[in-house]
Amino acid sequence: MSRTEPTRMPELMSHDRADLDALLDSGVLAHVGFVDEDGTPAVLPTAVARWGDLLLAHGSTGSRWMRRVAAGVPVAVSIAVVDGVVVARSAFESSLLYTSAVLFGEFHVLDGADHEAALDVLTDRVLPGRTSEVRRPTRRELAATEVVAMPIETWSLRRSDGWPEDPEHDVAGPAWAGHLRYGPPPVTRHAAPDLRPGTPEPGSLDRVRGVR
Amino acid sequence: MSRTEPTRMPELMSHDRADLDALLDSGVLAHVGFVDEDGTPAVLPTAVARWGDLLLAHGSTGSRWMRRVAAGVPVAVSIAVVDGVVVARSAFESSLLYTSAVLFGEFHVLDGADHEAALDVLTDRVLPGRTSEVRRPTRRELAATEVVAMPIETWSLRRSDGWPEDPEHDVAGPAWAGHLRYGPPPVTRHAAPDLRPGTPEPGSLDRVRGVR
Repeated sequence: MSRTEPTRMPELMSHDRADLDALLDSGVLAHVGFVDEDGTPAVLPTAVARWGDLLLAHGSTGSRWMRRVAAGVPVAVSIAVVDGVVVARSAFESSLLYTSAVLFGEFHVLDGADHEAALDVLTDRVLPGRTSEVRRPTRRELAATEVVAMPIETWSLRRSDGWPEDPEHDVAGPAWAGHLRYGPPPVTRHAAPDLRPGTPEPGSLDRVRGVR
Repeated sequence: MSRTEPTRMPELMSHDRADLDALLDSGVLAHVGFVDEDGTPAVLPTAVARWGDLLLAHGSTGSRWMRRVAAGVPVAVSIAVVDGVVVARSAFESSLLYTSAVLFGEFHVLDGADHEAALDVLTDRVLPGRTSEVRRPTRRELAATEVVAMPIETWSLRRSDGWPEDPEHDVAGPAWAGHLRYGPPPVTRHAAPDLRPGTPEPGSLDRVRGVR
């Protein structure tokens, strides 16, 4: 059986690439799974960003997981955003409201101009426009940062946004049912203790997105 | 090298079990990584809950990943909560504010009274007190739901909550630096279309937690 075909609840699946792009636009935190050198499973959380048909991640050239992933081992990248709770009339039918995807493939290392451009994509993913507010990376900073990309080709997506599916005898009963939905959280700003007085707040702070 | 010892930024590590418990109390969505039958990596998102020194998860007895995990294969369970953004004066020093952990071990299947009690823990994890507001699970529902537990023994935790560590020449420059922090998101309630008129909203809705 294909790893992108579900054994259960196929009605939650989507094969629409637009749904995947929407998920990658709303969540930034992914969990990268791979098989370690000793054959055991490893999973690492990391920020990701979509760049056209590539999924980008970055990390220190000195990090062990990045060296393994950069070597091109097979990976499974899981990303999920929880929007709330499906409150059913029984515990059994209750669940979370979510969209989740797993992408399969291998990362490869980006070099040269692609390396630097992809770092900008990762920075602007969280704070759109931030790269135009700060200096360019130095040669030393670029050398210390590995950027890896994976073609978005093989993936599986599930979206749960339906109402509770309680059986009739529960619908007739006393319990409440519905959705709890989370709205956008409030964002507070806290200047660094060593910020020079009078430094204006940049526009990118207004545009922060996807980190939660 | 041990998989729970970092190669980089050891100052972000915590070996304090209270920090792990706090993370498991604030985040409910974990990503379970394992090696599939064909040797490739797999990662699945799922709700988890702590029950004393056990990490609990559940799923359909018919799901392929649950059957594999329930068989006791080695797993790596990744859980992370992002609290905001470290806005530094350069892209290089910017990062996310987060707490993340990876737990290693094997799940085992819970039976009998433990099975049913653990399901209550999972339900009340998201909506505290919900199990006292709904009917008990039926025998058929219990039989359809696998509950697995993993001892919380081997784990690694990182917490990033420091101020930007910009070099002097950047601190003297024009760019803003600080934190963006997310507060608790607003929660809205949406009654199911088939809710019987007059059904009161239960107290557990006020106590929803950890799903985002």
